[in-house]
Amino acid sequence: MATSRGIWLDLERIRASAPLVHNITNYVVMNTTANALLAIGASPVMAHAVEEVEEMTDLASALVLNIGTLSGPWVTAMQKAAARARKRGIPIIVDPVGAGSTKFRTETARCLLEASPPAIIRGNASEIRSLVYAEKSTKGVDSRFDAEAALDAARSLSRLFGCVVSVSGAVDIIVEGTSVIRVANGHPLMPRVTGLGCTASALTGAFAAVNKDRLRAAAHAMAVMGIAGEMAAELAHGPASFQVHFVDILFHLAEKDIESRLRIKIS
Amino acid sequence: MATSRGIWLDLERIRASAPLVHNITNYVVMNTTANALLAIGASPVMAHAVEEVEEMTDLASALVLNIGTLSGPWVTAMQKAAARARKRGIPIIVDPVGAGSTKFRTETARCLLEASPPAIIRGNASEIRSLVYAEKSTKGVDSRFDAEAALDAARSLSRLFGCVVSVSGAVDIIVEGTSVIRVANGHPLMPRVTGLGCTASALTGAFAAVNKDRLRAAAHAMAVMGIAGEMAAELAHGPASFQVHFVDILFHLAEKDIESRLRIKIS
Amino acid sequence: MATSRGIWLDLERIRASAPLVHNITNYVVMNTTANALLAIGASPVMAHAVEEVEEMTDLASALVLNIGTLSGPWVTAMQKAAARARKRGIPIIVDPVGAGSTKFRTETARCLLEASPPAIIRGNASEIRSLVYAEKSTKGVDSRFDAEAALDAARSLSRLFGCVVSVSGAVDIIVEGTSVIRVANGHPLMPRVTGLGCTASALTGAFAAVNKDRLRAAAHAMAVMGIAGEMAAELAHGPASFQVHFVDILFHLAEKDIESRLRIKIS
Repeated sequence: MATSRGIWLDLERIRASAPLVHNITNYVVMNTTANALLAIGASPVMAHAVEEVEEMTDLASALVLNIGTLSGPWVTAMQKAAARARKRGIPIIVDPVGAGSTKFRTETARCLLEASPPAIIRGNASEIRSLVYAEKSTKGVDSRFDAEAALDAARSLSRLFGCVVSVSGAVDIIVEGTSVIRVANGHPLMPRVTGLGCTASALTGAFAAVNKDRLRAAAHAMAVMGIAGEMAAELAHGPASFQVHFVDILFHLAEKDIESRLRIKIS
Repeated sequence: MATSRGIWLDLERIRASAPLVHNITNYVVMNTTANALLAIGASPVMAHAVEEVEEMTDLASALVLNIGTLSGPWVTAMQKAAARARKRGIPIIVDPVGAGSTKFRTETARCLLEASPPAIIRGNASEIRSLVYAEKSTKGVDSRFDAEAALDAARSLSRLFGCVVSVSGAVDIIVEGTSVIRVANGHPLMPRVTGLGCTASALTGAFAAVNKDRLRAAAHAMAVMGIAGEMAAELAHGPASFQVHFVDILFHLAEKDIESRLRIKIS
Repeated sequence: MATSRGIWLDLERIRASAPLVHNITNYVVMNTTANALLAIGASPVMAHAVEEVEEMTDLASALVLNIGTLSGPWVTAMQKAAARARKRGIPIIVDPVGAGSTKFRTETARCLLEASPPAIIRGNASEIRSLVYAEKSTKGVDSRFDAEAALDAARSLSRLFGCVVSVSGAVDIIVEGTSVIRVANGHPLMPRVTGLGCTASALTGAFAAVNKDRLRAAAHAMAVMGIAGEMAAELAHGPASFQVHFVDILFHLAEKDIESRLRIKIS
């Protein structure tokens, strides 16, 4: 279950086993997401060359694909890595950054989903909606919507690809078929730091690497993001010190922090 | 006018409208400049694929081109995005990072300027001089000169391309035709942090997005950089904590901070 | 000699001459290593386009090649830059990030070493071993071994390429022919921050730029890394604040810090 105990057990498993998470992600957040993965106890690797992605995926316990700064050769690499991950049965997490803002992103995201359906799609409401509706996003990589506004789109994607859909927002919603988990942790400062959505996707990869229940894994990652975010915001003087505290807190996160702060609702 | 009131009004406009700033910039600073843009209230997006740059530029209120880690396909993307920005009438800011250090950079910068004259060129003195004189820069991306040493070159570029030229240094000079604004804010620690010049260019994009007076917009951005830099230096223990304080301060910058610190001279 | 006095003299030389260090490195760490180089007083430049690498290498006092996020065109650029550096007689530092984890990385690293033997190879034990033994690394870019486990491999590489081999670990070993220097400085938090190995390679470039004794230069860099790491760990609350303190400390590092903390053994 998505309880504080369940989250804690996953976190202990990550810290004990240091699962290798293979990221093909965007230039803006590579450093940030690598540090967040190290902080929770996972082992990140970034590799995008077509010459090596399959071999790197062979070593990994999860594959995270993030289209935030896309270009042709990276798409090819993502497709190859995803096909290999499917074959090996390791979870794929797709973050469709900026889907809806350009045709290239929307179509690349759809192609990735169709060619190798992932375990989990993790995005903001604009991105998730754009994968279902012919809807143009006018705010680049930011969302114009609450997560709740993407609930139907998330359900539709979940059915279509047989996957979990995790939508970040003030209240995150994590959907699989007819199940919905809502996570109300988090802080308004979080969208003011670049790469926290991408960090959520990377941590989702770490949780999915140790927990076969993909709905729980996705919800646990969002809960840890939100709880660490709240704790960091209490110490921060702005978005940059927030980011420093956030990673430090991920490193030290204790069961009592999760117990005392978790605001989760399962329906 | 380039007064503390004018700067404050621009900052309020940025915070109220969150203009989308499309950056095609270098790998070293992508995270830094995205966070600085978010901190002052703008909405950054990074997109460099030829397949999508025009469509992304269509969504943006300003386009920032930075040649800090150039390669062939990125130049093509910059050209396409710039042509589209010209067509749409949104301001283009060009940062000729390292111009003068290699032919490839100098020529790429010149080609960009000639094909799609920008609203504002923002660089250090070595870079600005190299675009006018056949002068080799021997310090990579650092400047060997005070901004003042690039005054004639800046005037010449301003005439040639009908644009503003913003030269960073201990005293920044911002030139349009025969007008010169000098901004004396800043701190010696700033050149010891990578990407602050690039951050100045990104913030210049945000100010140009909300202020049609390009000379003022460019000067306002440099003043905010310098003032936030002074305030950060008072709290910092070195260049890394400087960077953290700097972004936190951008987020909180108040009218009184600008009023009490602004050192600007218009001639 | 690799004494605190020798380290201090190198550091003073770096701070006085600000040697230009040309880095062709990975996306994850570009910002981190540029800031670390600036903090110790060097002048970093990142340039990877085949069109300009040779001209940039012509300006530099050291060339650092890091294969952490490799792809075809970058390999070509590294080869060109390395050939030019050899011709000019400036030190080349090769960091074979992730060698052993994929054939592409192992073979690229070997090709670089064979085509243009470097002054210094700097890696972790898994990477150094993989360049000598047909041994698969299963942990991506992390090491499964203590540095000591790579001593024979380091000696073998040193003989083969006539270079210094610097292996990071709890105790670093720096090898040239039959000489071995061991540096016992450092802190367990360091492997939990991404890019500190890459930072060690970048700083090795700065030390090699000012000290022709490559064995000393390599050892001095590792000592400064370890000492700054210990000092940062005493102030840090986790890996992100560690990184901030680390760079601040590099900026301020004093002779007494080195004298009082250096733990080095020459055999």
